[in-house]
Amino acid sequence: MSNVEVIRHPAEMSAWAEAVRERGERIAFVPTMGALHAGHVSLLSAAREHADRVALSIFVNPTQFGPNEDLARYPRDLVGDLTKAAGVGTDVAFVPEVADMYPPGAQTVVEVREVSKGLCGDRRPGHFSGVATVVCKLFGIIRPHVAIFGEKDFQQLAVIRRMVLDLDLPVEIVGCPTLREQDGLAMSSRNAYLSPDERARAVALFRGLSAARECFRGGERSALALVEAALHVITPSFDRVDYVEIREADSLLPVQRLDKPAVILAAVFLGATRLIDNIRLF
Amino acid sequence: MSNVEVIRHPAEMSAWAEAVRERGERIAFVPTMGALHAGHVSLLSAAREHADRVALSIFVNPTQFGPNEDLARYPRDLVGDLTKAAGVGTDVAFVPEVADMYPPGAQTVVEVREVSKGLCGDRRPGHFSGVATVVCKLFGIIRPHVAIFGEKDFQQLAVIRRMVLDLDLPVEIVGCPTLREQDGLAMSSRNAYLSPDERARAVALFRGLSAARECFRGGERSALALVEAALHVITPSFDRVDYVEIREADSLLPVQRLDKPAVILAAVFLGATRLIDNIRLF
Repeated sequence: MSNVEVIRHPAEMSAWAEAVRERGERIAFVPTMGALHAGHVSLLSAAREHADRVALSIFVNPTQFGPNEDLARYPRDLVGDLTKAAGVGTDVAFVPEVADMYPPGAQTVVEVREVSKGLCGDRRPGHFSGVATVVCKLFGIIRPHVAIFGEKDFQQLAVIRRMVLDLDLPVEIVGCPTLREQDGLAMSSRNAYLSPDERARAVALFRGLSAARECFRGGERSALALVEAALHVITPSFDRVDYVEIREADSLLPVQRLDKPAVILAAVFLGATRLIDNIRLF
Repeated sequence: MSNVEVIRHPAEMSAWAEAVRERGERIAFVPTMGALHAGHVSLLSAAREHADRVALSIFVNPTQFGPNEDLARYPRDLVGDLTKAAGVGTDVAFVPEVADMYPPGAQTVVEVREVSKGLCGDRRPGHFSGVATVVCKLFGIIRPHVAIFGEKDFQQLAVIRRMVLDLDLPVEIVGCPTLREQDGLAMSSRNAYLSPDERARAVALFRGLSAARECFRGGERSALALVEAALHVITPSFDRVDYVEIREADSLLPVQRLDKPAVILAAVFLGATRLIDNIRLF
């Protein structure tokens, strides 16, 4: 197991990428906020299969956090992250400082308008603009041939896909299935916030979405009825339900009857901890 | 004089660029809206000195026109443009259709916030967002090593420079001096709209800015006094003065006393035709 090269400065990262490209090698890129879990590791493994070189970024991006969100306490574990990344053959970790990503005078934002609306977009104003902007920057710095994202952040993946299409960014986007704990809870860095009691209750999120999928497989096609089936399981276990909604899988447009590929998405609170999950319905 | 290859489709344009890059050659890019004049030709000549291959785009971008602006009547002359471009060794002209640049569902915009404010940004809401977005797209499609812009559109050049810096776009931006007619009028495709009488009056724009520069060279450092000197010459000749302002040259921030590099910028109307110009003061 060889070490992961750590690069701090954007210009140095670009020079690395330029040298790789000049050798005719392909770069696969996995952007993260660190606190890597098995889900991230699966993305890095997938990246390995798409390219000669795998680049990881670890950057807790302040512009995608709201004023009352968990930026300050977001889990950080660089040493652990690098060990996990090395285990699956990651070549380089880009770990920039906030001041190097957003120097004084920075003022450009990328807005992906419709797909960013509703769901997490409404609950976290500015979140997806922050995500789109930083991912656009990371693509500019690392210039990957392919970038790997988890489907757990389903709306985020839709935003990135739309941005890449609309801005003609020369990168292929690959989405990977959500990794889950034994009981079904979607892996997330934010699971680390949960108390044992909260952790036990958290599984109801996946169970609720699965209940909706069972109804769908049984022939139910009304979005309202499917959401009701999910809420029936979810509501009693959480302190607050942020949303449970069914959307078209590609456009994320609202849907009443499920006559094309759809996805059921949910966000819930356990104390101050916000969890999201989704399951495809088709 | 060899012919310019005309490419209509974005995917085909990207394939051209990819092949050039794989040969290790450099691409210089000049984005235009067509109706090429000697100013554009000077940009293409400059491009020639920066790279192995010169790409020109001709695209009257609808998203940078306001609802009451001259999109429909904007001058178009593809045959003439290609002849002029061929004369200075342009390799390829990217001439896309609107529907290929903005297919159904397109929804992503790039906003360069502060630099887009004031001056033309206030008078043409959405204009610089349209410019930034289409240039970002063109960079993604053509993937140039260097892109050449005229200083005549000074605020546009500042917006592009800021966007490239903020989004870490891997392209070098080069600004080229404004080309002028014998009497000093800045070359512009919109000069074609002017009647002989309007054409005669138009020169007062450059004369007014030059008058301000003379005062500056004479030691005047008050922005207000310099603007007054320009307006004294400009106001009598035009149907309406949109703005005459002095700004810091890099940030485009307003300035009262000229103790660092500045620029005087103006926009005026002759009938429905809007002309802009600027001169550096330092």
